[in-house]
Amino acid sequence: MRTYVYAGSFDPVTNGHMDIIKRAAKQCGKLIVAVLVNSSKTPCFTTQERVEMLKKSVSDLGNVEVESFSGLLVEFMAKRDAFTIIKGLRAVSDFEYEMQMALLNKKLSPNIETLFMITGLRYSFLSSSMVRELAKNNGDIAGFVPDEIKEEINAKLKPKSDFLGG
Amino acid sequence: MRTYVYAGSFDPVTNGHMDIIKRAAKQCGKLIVAVLVNSSKTPCFTTQERVEMLKKSVSDLGNVEVESFSGLLVEFMAKRDAFTIIKGLRAVSDFEYEMQMALLNKKLSPNIETLFMITGLRYSFLSSSMVRELAKNNGDIAGFVPDEIKEEINAKLKPKSDFLGG
Amino acid sequence: MRTYVYAGSFDPVTNGHMDIIKRAAKQCGKLIVAVLVNSSKTPCFTTQERVEMLKKSVSDLGNVEVESFSGLLVEFMAKRDAFTIIKGLRAVSDFEYEMQMALLNKKLSPNIETLFMITGLRYSFLSSSMVRELAKNNGDIAGFVPDEIKEEINAKLKPKSDFLGG
Amino acid sequence: MRTYVYAGSFDPVTNGHMDIIKRAAKQCGKLIVAVLVNSSKTPCFTTQERVEMLKKSVSDLGNVEVESFSGLLVEFMAKRDAFTIIKGLRAVSDFEYEMQMALLNKKLSPNIETLFMITGLRYSFLSSSMVRELAKNNGDIAGFVPDEIKEEINAKLKPKSDFLGG
Amino acid sequence: MRTYVYAGSFDPVTNGHMDIIKRAAKQCGKLIVAVLVNSSKTPCFTTQERVEMLKKSVSDLGNVEVESFSGLLVEFMAKRDAFTIIKGLRAVSDFEYEMQMALLNKKLSPNIETLFMITGLRYSFLSSSMVRELAKNNGDIAGFVPDEIKEEINAKLKPKSDFLGG
Amino acid sequence: MRTYVYAGSFDPVTNGHMDIIKRAAKQCGKLIVAVLVNSSKTPCFTTQERVEMLKKSVSDLGNVEVESFSGLLVEFMAKRDAFTIIKGLRAVSDFEYEMQMALLNKKLSPNIETLFMITGLRYSFLSSSMVRELAKNNGDIAGFVPDEIKEEINAKLKPKSDFLGG
Repeated sequence: MRTYVYAGSFDPVTNGHMDIIKRAAKQCGKLIVAVLVNSSKTPCFTTQERVEMLKKSVSDLGNVEVESFSGLLVEFMAKRDAFTIIKGLRAVSDFEYEMQMALLNKKLSPNIETLFMITGLRYSFLSSSMVRELAKNNGDIAGFVPDEIKEEINAKLKPKSDFLGG
Repeated sequence: MRTYVYAGSFDPVTNGHMDIIKRAAKQCGKLIVAVLVNSSKTPCFTTQERVEMLKKSVSDLGNVEVESFSGLLVEFMAKRDAFTIIKGLRAVSDFEYEMQMALLNKKLSPNIETLFMITGLRYSFLSSSMVRELAKNNGDIAGFVPDEIKEEINAKLKPKSDFLGG
Repeated sequence: MRTYVYAGSFDPVTNGHMDIIKRAAKQCGKLIVAVLVNSSKTPCFTTQERVEMLKKSVSDLGNVEVESFSGLLVEFMAKRDAFTIIKGLRAVSDFEYEMQMALLNKKLSPNIETLFMITGLRYSFLSSSMVRELAKNNGDIAGFVPDEIKEEINAKLKPKSDFLGG
Repeated sequence: MRTYVYAGSFDPVTNGHMDIIKRAAKQCGKLIVAVLVNSSKTPCFTTQERVEMLKKSVSDLGNVEVESFSGLLVEFMAKRDAFTIIKGLRAVSDFEYEMQMALLNKKLSPNIETLFMITGLRYSFLSSSMVRELAKNNGDIAGFVPDEIKEEINAKLKPKSDFLGG
Repeated sequence: MRTYVYAGSFDPVTNGHMDIIKRAAKQCGKLIVAVLVNSSKTPCFTTQERVEMLKKSVSDLGNVEVESFSGLLVEFMAKRDAFTIIKGLRAVSDFEYEMQMALLNKKLSPNIETLFMITGLRYSFLSSSMVRELAKNNGDIAGFVPDEIKEEINAKLKPKSDFLGG
Repeated sequence: MRTYVYAGSFDPVTNGHMDIIKRAAKQCGKLIVAVLVNSSKTPCFTTQERVEMLKKSVSDLGNVEVESFSGLLVEFMAKRDAFTIIKGLRAVSDFEYEMQMALLNKKLSPNIETLFMITGLRYSFLSSSMVRELAKNNGDIAGFVPDEIKEEINAKLKPKSDFLGG
């Protein structure tokens, strides 16, 4: 069975990402979750933190591996002998951009196919940036990210009480 | 490997459909092309004609089968032990409707997953209704439908010359 | 407090409509659900059936009334001394059409305002035509329409068993 | 200077169409307004009525001609030595469909170019079908269609009073 | 009657915002215009400047108050005993984002409802960033912002003539 | 015949831009390609580099000129006695933004008309930022930009091998 690659920033991974990971893992032989080391945009969490949070979140999924990569996705995939990209779609604006990326990747590497899944409805409002914004504003992120990493995100992003008694 | 189902009216099959069929067949163990017998909308070609045209068009694809079905797609799939729907997307309006269908099918049958592929760019303007319109107006449909069925479509749809020399 | 009008075909009313009705009723003094008597499109249920199904469905909502109307919505509203239209939005294609209608109604009657609500996520795949299609194909419509009217819809639309023991 | 063709059903022409006609006429040497004789859809006004209403509406525009055509637009244009289609865009759904048509026409006839203009804001809610619906429901269509043809549209579509004094 | 909250950056308030404010004020008992103190994005005008410009612009609207807030909108609303958010919509991309925000806010605070209004057509091209861009490039912003604050915006953003005689 | 202006950042010019330039040049008497000197966003290539790359790319098109401009486009056009803006459209999100700009420009300068062309399908995934991203990640940009400027772009953006044998 085929190997799928699910690439992104995962800054941090959300339950919307997890929804795609769980469903995609059922469709393929192996799923590689590939964390983009993006040199131009500065992520909130380091590459290592993002990889570790993902590893904790997928620990009970037998055929899912987590890696980081830099450079072009199609070249990372060639090295892994993988030819199928999996993507989650939430909305029209997602679709436009992802369609462009799928076409570009097909142009760069004609053997590569991109498959899309609709993100589960109850996650359609969810994104990594909304999770970060919520945590920074002291909002409750439970239910938006995997339980295993909630504390780690809050520890990094929640405003600290600035004196005794908070 | 998994069985995919690619369902539609195929009235008639176009090269846009063929693009999805060929690419989807590489992603799965078996691909069932399922022709919808729609009792409410009257198709231009009969169910049998649509199935035969598809069979001619996929004859060199080893793992593709063609069938017709009526009723709900999810029930047809249950009988075939198939759990993955494949869909081609051309544009935003496609996406909206197909997203609704994917969500409905998941609600009706939670085990079923819908995967989407972007239709090849050079087919993004193509639809069965445009092919029919073109043939009816005496336009050239070569390149828009499989070569094997071009004559059959023209025979049914092209306006007849109405007198000698016509 | 203001009177809202929620107009549509309701052929039949779905739980997506009910979601808007319940939420809108909390925002206004009185909510009139207005069933369009559309002379050009032939609905599946008669005007009276559609009104009765709605009345059963809203019976426990104190400030909701059900009526039918023909002609222009803005004229119906003038007679009811109502100046606020409420609309549910599911998707982009809804939005385009509803924006046009809101602008037209404002042009026809500058005092009238249209307010939009997002239909609850779990109803975003739902429409009256999908309910009809489902029932006609012997699918289960429970959860898609109010319990009070499920039998009535099935009685009208479900295919009859064609022999004893059916 | 180039000849533009502005094609459509014009059933009937609206002030939104007129906005495009007036602005397009300034951009080209000659503008042909081409009324589609559509054999499959039954228009509300006859071809001759639609052509006559347009002729009245453009009578003070020196470089605009009105004609009807059947068959493919690209073939009509070839006969007129015209290579530029002009289209008005109101909204996203317009855009999707018109993009498909532009790509199809370019495929059928590579020399033909399609240029798009944004319909003036105050006409963005306006369409021929809305004008027909309005007139049929006894609404006031003044400001939505050229003054010259208002009476003709009302005469055809407004409901007749059914008794003396009506 | 209910209290509505209309939140945003208002950097600066435009006539598009004013259109929503005036129309929303008619729909509710009290309208709170809430200026977001955004710690991550640096606005062009200070919080105090934005609040003052709004206060000048709404001075003749009896039931409108202007405040600033930081943190989550739903928590600000809880403190004000307000349960209805009002939003203006201009276009599809607005709609996508605002739909996500409405769903997130409903998730965070189920009692809160978001109502949308279509921004008046003649403001559909207008945004705070376009006003800033226009002023910086010495363009005329009259008609785009309330008269009361035009000078203040120009004073801050218009390029200064760099020598006598300007 | 009329003068068209095609404005943008061209950072750098792509084959998608060239597609519009070539097709637009056939529709008008003179085409001015206008490079925006954007003081707020820092481009990757200097104004002079962008102008020079464009000049190389259009050298065999007789009626095309390249210039840079700062400030408002409508004012630049007034100085050039040009009244028609040409724009390429790729997708819905393009359309939304460009529609806003067209309406703003018409408001600022009512004599100015904006005409849109659909970017050729095989360039619909292409943008200057994708070209830059590709080059920075050592990807092959051949076919995405004019041959004449490929080396120049690579020289600026491709990562240098950092030791002998690199």
